[in-house]
Amino acid sequence: MTTHVSVLGLGMMGSALATALLKAGHHVTVWNRSPARTGPLVAQGALPAGTPAEAAAASPLVVVCLLTDDTVHEVFDTLGDVTGKTLVNLTNGTPAQARELAARAADHGAHYLDGGIMAVPQMIAGPHAYVFYSGDEQAYETHRATLAAFGGTKWTGTDPGRAALYDLALLTGMYGMVVGVLQAFALVRTEHISAEEFSELLVPWVTAMLASAPEMGRAIDTGQHLTDVSSLAVNQAAFPNFTATFRDQGVSPELFVPFQALLDRAIAEGHAADGLSRLADLLTVER
Amino acid sequence: MTTHVSVLGLGMMGSALATALLKAGHHVTVWNRSPARTGPLVAQGALPAGTPAEAAAASPLVVVCLLTDDTVHEVFDTLGDVTGKTLVNLTNGTPAQARELAARAADHGAHYLDGGIMAVPQMIAGPHAYVFYSGDEQAYETHRATLAAFGGTKWTGTDPGRAALYDLALLTGMYGMVVGVLQAFALVRTEHISAEEFSELLVPWVTAMLASAPEMGRAIDTGQHLTDVSSLAVNQAAFPNFTATFRDQGVSPELFVPFQALLDRAIAEGHAADGLSRLADLLTVER
Repeated sequence: MTTHVSVLGLGMMGSALATALLKAGHHVTVWNRSPARTGPLVAQGALPAGTPAEAAAASPLVVVCLLTDDTVHEVFDTLGDVTGKTLVNLTNGTPAQARELAARAADHGAHYLDGGIMAVPQMIAGPHAYVFYSGDEQAYETHRATLAAFGGTKWTGTDPGRAALYDLALLTGMYGMVVGVLQAFALVRTEHISAEEFSELLVPWVTAMLASAPEMGRAIDTGQHLTDVSSLAVNQAAFPNFTATFRDQGVSPELFVPFQALLDRAIAEGHAADGLSRLADLLTVER
Repeated sequence: MTTHVSVLGLGMMGSALATALLKAGHHVTVWNRSPARTGPLVAQGALPAGTPAEAAAASPLVVVCLLTDDTVHEVFDTLGDVTGKTLVNLTNGTPAQARELAARAADHGAHYLDGGIMAVPQMIAGPHAYVFYSGDEQAYETHRATLAAFGGTKWTGTDPGRAALYDLALLTGMYGMVVGVLQAFALVRTEHISAEEFSELLVPWVTAMLASAPEMGRAIDTGQHLTDVSSLAVNQAAFPNFTATFRDQGVSPELFVPFQALLDRAIAEGHAADGLSRLADLLTVER
C-alpha cells in the first residue's frame, strides 16, 4: 500500500531513506536545511518542501534523520500542527534524548517512534539492514509496512529509549571487536606480517570465541560466574605476556591498560575463580 | 608411527597433552614437580620420571608445558644432556622469551620449537584445537605427525618468537571482542534485559561486522585509509552518545575512554576522513 511520507534531513542516511521510500512507490516529500540536497531526490520523484512545517503538513508519517539531537529539537520547534501525525526519529541519539523527544511529541498531540538503524547508508533497503523501533506501539503497527522499505523492522518496547539502547549496545559490542582487531593488526605488522592475511586466522578465531557470548550472558543473568575453563586468575596470570609483548614490539598498550586494571580489581575483590562474565558486574556502578 | 615422547609439566594443559599422546599410542614419560599429578597418567600407561633429566633421557622429543617462563628456565637448567633432542616449549610466553630459550637450547645442541596452543585443555585433540609452531623447521617436519595428536599444526616461521606472536595477536583480538560483549551486556542489564537473550542479536551483529576485518587489514597493509562508509569524523561525532548513555545508565566507561581518546588524537592529527583502520597506525610507536 502506497502512502505519503515526509523525510526531514537529507544527509547520506536521510537521502538513502528517502530513496528507499520512493523505490517502494510511496509519495515522498523531502526537506533539507541546505536545499541543494533535494535535487537528486526530486529527480527521482520526490516533492521538495521549503520548510519543516510544509514537509510535515504533506504526510501523516514524518521521518526525521538529522545530524544531532540538538538539530532535531530545533526542527521539532518549527513543525507547526502535528496533531495525530506519527513522528519517527531515526537520528542517532541516546535513550534519554529519545524519552525527552517522545514527551515533546506527546505535548503536541503527535505519536512518537524512535528508531536505531543497524546499517550504513549503502545497506539501506538491502537484505542485511534492519531498524530497532520503540515508543508508540499502535503507531508502529500502523506504519510498519511503510517503514519496512528501509529493511527489517524490530520492535523493542514502549519505552521510547529502548531502540537507542539496543542500537548503542550492539555498536558497543562492535567497537570492542574493532579494538581487538586493530591491536592484533598493529602487533603483527611490527613483524611485517600482512594484516589482511592475518585476518584469515583472526576472523575465524574471534568468530569461534564469540560462540561463548550466550554462556557469558547466562552467567551475568544468573550471577553464577564460576568457571572451569578460563578463570579470572588464569587471565590475570597471562596478561603480563600481553603487556610485555606490546612493549617489546613497540605497540601502545593504551587500549588494554584499563582491561588489565579491571581484571586486577575483580581478583582483589575475591573473584579469582570466576569467569570473565564477572567483569560485567564490576562495570555496573550505582546510580 | 608410534614414538617416545616426554612431557614435563602436568597442569591442566600438560595433562591434556600427555593424555592425547597416550591415546595416539605413543610411549609417554611424564614428570611433574609435584609427583601426585602423575597418578592419573600412569594409570593410562605413562611412565613416571623422578627428575626432568630422567624424563628428557627417555625420549628424543621433549614437550615442556609449565606455568611460566621462569619455571621453564629452571627446568631447562636441569635437563642434562639434550644433544640432538627436540625441545618443544608450549608454555605461554612472549616472542622475546621464545627467542631466548631457542638460543639456550642451541647452546646445548638441542633443536627448539616454540608453540602457541589455540585451545583450552578441554579442547585438546578435538576438531577445533590447533597449535602454532615456530623455530627449527626440520625438527618440526620430523615430529609434526606426533605433535598432530594435540590437534591441527600450523607452521609460522623460523623465528622462534613467531608462534607466540600469532598466539598473542589472536588472543588480543579475542580480548577486544570480550570487552565489547561485556560492556554491551552491562548496558542492557541496567534495563533488566536478559544478557543471554540479547546475545541472540549481539553475536550475529558482531559476526557480520567482523567481515570488514580483511578490508581493514588491507587498508593497514597499503596505508590507504580513506573511506566512504564510516570515517573517523563520523565515529567521533557519535561517541558522546555512548559516553552519555554509559553515564545515564550507570555503566562505567572505563574500558572505552582510551578508545575515544585515540579517536580524538587521530582526528587532531588530520585523519578525519580516514576509516578506523588508521587507528592501528597510531598504536604503533617508535622502537
